[in-house]
Amino acid sequence: MAADKIETIVSLSKRRGFVYPCSEIYGGQRAAWDYGPLGVELKENIRRQWWRNMVTSREDVVGLDSSVILAPEVWVASGHVATFSDPLTECTSCHKRYRADHLEETYEAKHGRPPAGGLADINCPHCGNKGGFTEPKQFSGLLSTHLGPTQDTASVAYLRPETAQGIFTNFAQVQVSSRKKPPFGIAQTGKSFRNEITPGNFIFRTREFEQMEMEFFVKPGEDEEWQEYWMQERWNWYRDLGLREENMRWYDHPKEKLSHYSKRTADIEYRFNFGGQEFSELEGIANRTDYDLKAHSAATGHDLVYFDQDAGERWTPYVIEPAAGLNRAMLAFLLDAYVEDEAPNAKGKLEKRNLLRFDPRLAPVKAAVLPLSRNPELSPKAKGLAADLRKHWNIEFDDAGAIGRRYRRQDEIGTPFCVTVDFDTLEDNAVTVRERDTMKQERVSLDQVESYLGGRLIGC
Amino acid sequence: MAADKIETIVSLSKRRGFVYPCSEIYGGQRAAWDYGPLGVELKENIRRQWWRNMVTSREDVVGLDSSVILAPEVWVASGHVATFSDPLTECTSCHKRYRADHLEETYEAKHGRPPAGGLADINCPHCGNKGGFTEPKQFSGLLSTHLGPTQDTASVAYLRPETAQGIFTNFAQVQVSSRKKPPFGIAQTGKSFRNEITPGNFIFRTREFEQMEMEFFVKPGEDEEWQEYWMQERWNWYRDLGLREENMRWYDHPKEKLSHYSKRTADIEYRFNFGGQEFSELEGIANRTDYDLKAHSAATGHDLVYFDQDAGERWTPYVIEPAAGLNRAMLAFLLDAYVEDEAPNAKGKLEKRNLLRFDPRLAPVKAAVLPLSRNPELSPKAKGLAADLRKHWNIEFDDAGAIGRRYRRQDEIGTPFCVTVDFDTLEDNAVTVRERDTMKQERVSLDQVESYLGGRLIGC
Repeated sequence: MAADKIETIVSLSKRRGFVYPCSEIYGGQRAAWDYGPLGVELKENIRRQWWRNMVTSREDVVGLDSSVILAPEVWVASGHVATFSDPLTECTSCHKRYRADHLEETYEAKHGRPPAGGLADINCPHCGNKGGFTEPKQFSGLLSTHLGPTQDTASVAYLRPETAQGIFTNFAQVQVSSRKKPPFGIAQTGKSFRNEITPGNFIFRTREFEQMEMEFFVKPGEDEEWQEYWMQERWNWYRDLGLREENMRWYDHPKEKLSHYSKRTADIEYRFNFGGQEFSELEGIANRTDYDLKAHSAATGHDLVYFDQDAGERWTPYVIEPAAGLNRAMLAFLLDAYVEDEAPNAKGKLEKRNLLRFDPRLAPVKAAVLPLSRNPELSPKAKGLAADLRKHWNIEFDDAGAIGRRYRRQDEIGTPFCVTVDFDTLEDNAVTVRERDTMKQERVSLDQVESYLGGRLIGC
Repeated sequence: MAADKIETIVSLSKRRGFVYPCSEIYGGQRAAWDYGPLGVELKENIRRQWWRNMVTSREDVVGLDSSVILAPEVWVASGHVATFSDPLTECTSCHKRYRADHLEETYEAKHGRPPAGGLADINCPHCGNKGGFTEPKQFSGLLSTHLGPTQDTASVAYLRPETAQGIFTNFAQVQVSSRKKPPFGIAQTGKSFRNEITPGNFIFRTREFEQMEMEFFVKPGEDEEWQEYWMQERWNWYRDLGLREENMRWYDHPKEKLSHYSKRTADIEYRFNFGGQEFSELEGIANRTDYDLKAHSAATGHDLVYFDQDAGERWTPYVIEPAAGLNRAMLAFLLDAYVEDEAPNAKGKLEKRNLLRFDPRLAPVKAAVLPLSRNPELSPKAKGLAADLRKHWNIEFDDAGAIGRRYRRQDEIGTPFCVTVDFDTLEDNAVTVRERDTMKQERVSLDQVESYLGGRLIGC
């Protein structure tokens, strides 16, 4: 299943309303995706868990939401205008375009060594032609637009390629108004935009994407220790929300491949199994040093430092940045949660079932309320229960088709609990609660359903 | 206070970390704002209340999150490329630019009648020169960018000016995968971008802004009734979250001023008191008819209709759209919640206090835990309590300065409860809970604080 698991997830996502191809009725917008009724809940649940874990449950991190379009000078000072570019090459045979560095990485992953002759050793992944690549040209990853009535250069503006710079430019304001002292962090989530040469692999790499970034400001000298701390924290976050550790690994960027601002970057990789590679980046934890704060200080004349009154010292904080991609986190949770097993049908015969074993905190629907059949007595009771539960959680009501089929439907979208209202309910005022993974059923009194689910949906 | 209340809010917002000028260290990005630690929580709380009210608590509305950059053909079919423009005029004396329609509206609001001679009757709001305006030119409100390596016209793309079109283009997919039948709605929140000629009035009108839109699909003929329903629902939503009805009113767009797609649009207006007008738009509830679905049908050949199996009828749904602006909703909640009253200081003397009387569901910080003084016995107890409460809510811990000053600080950011750990706590294991608006204090046992607050923070 491994190789085509991604295809299974793409298909399930479309059919059940997790993810649709963007603008599909217009033939689609290449490598862009829209999130359907279930996808928007799943994505929001991941984001909310991140925010709780990184911001509101902590004393030492505060939130921020800066603009997508910052002053253009920000991107000059940060180095993005000059250096945020990728090496673009084209196959002279089929004219497909590639990132030269990606071609070389894929070669290295396959052969265990980099190509000795560079691009000349590599076959075009599309047409197979060997070494027919053009000399790589640097191609800016910044998307730009024009503000105001005229399209002259004075009005050019960039769509942010990372949320981080909005944090650095607000560092002093946040520090003063929130009265935090290093070590402390500023976190934000939101859309970023990159003019990717080779977007693809479903929602893994797209031109617009959502980031969850946190910049943690520490005293120089304490940066290496804090990077270790945040590496552990981030690993644990994925693991505690259900990602299996056997599908995760660390990748430390070699010194010569580090970004211009980084002293060390360690990626959490996940076994996505696509694009010719087993593992791909899920999240990077970078030591950005004092590069950004110093760059903005130099460009503006503002002193972006911390003055430690007790010690009488003034220093520019170092920054540890755990930077996660929300969309690829969602893809990892989808892939990891998906299993195919068997369940008995109405006649007791085992049938294949598709299952998304989401942690309840991530599941888009927390419970489904199902009347055993469409019946003038069962349906209103079930609808009433669904309405009550909706005060707390996202709940589905479904009365269409055989009960077994309805269970399968909920299993496939990862609903942790199905609550069935049957004919006994009319006698005993109780319902059957079925747990998704074990398929175990339990009889629960109607007036206890809310607290029963409450106890099992902690942190949702 | 009315006239400069907005200035008070701008200043409070910056000082306490609700809203900062964007890219301020670079001299600012005109009319763009970043949301600080408190602002991001307040904004997210409003959004979450909207989502609960409009989506998860309802059986008949599902969510969506479509892309900012759709296929460019979408904006041709929707009419935006041809008609989404504003009349731009320039004062020939001071060269300041205006929207001609805004100048005329302001004139009408002031004089009770439109200017008989059009722009010729109007004084420039900046330099006072009368009637020196250029002939208005249509100026596109669409922000565009280029995708891919070349900047030719083939790669032009637009940043969405409304989230609605992402809903219409996904109508068929959502309808099928969620198995909903009209009347049903599709809701989404997210950033939109408009090349505004005259952004301004703090976060009221900005080039990037967040929308909360819902398209409700109904049977033709039932549209007028549903518009009335949603007008009432939306009014109640603001009122139930604390907006005072005396500051709200309805404005029905005159027929000749309706957007190209609208049969009727009714705005909820709020008494913002800026830009020479008492009331400005908070939210519009529009009857978009079948305009958009038919436009996309015609452009793509896809049949965007609903087939009613029971009746054997096939029809294109009419659409009722409640479209709210998240940023201006936040501004309205801030303005409406702000009051200045008096509170006794440590010596019992009355002093002025600034108060944000937020509904607890909107308050960025739900409770503050305050040790009476910095003390080796009180501080750890208070910190422990804060850590416990943080599992559920956004909590502040503050031990800096006199207790009265710390109360004032929390009042000014709208924290509903202050929990004080004092020397009696060491004896009776109880704390004092102070309510923000009444300043009433109640003694609550330490092990009851969580459930005490839980009972008062329902729906948070």
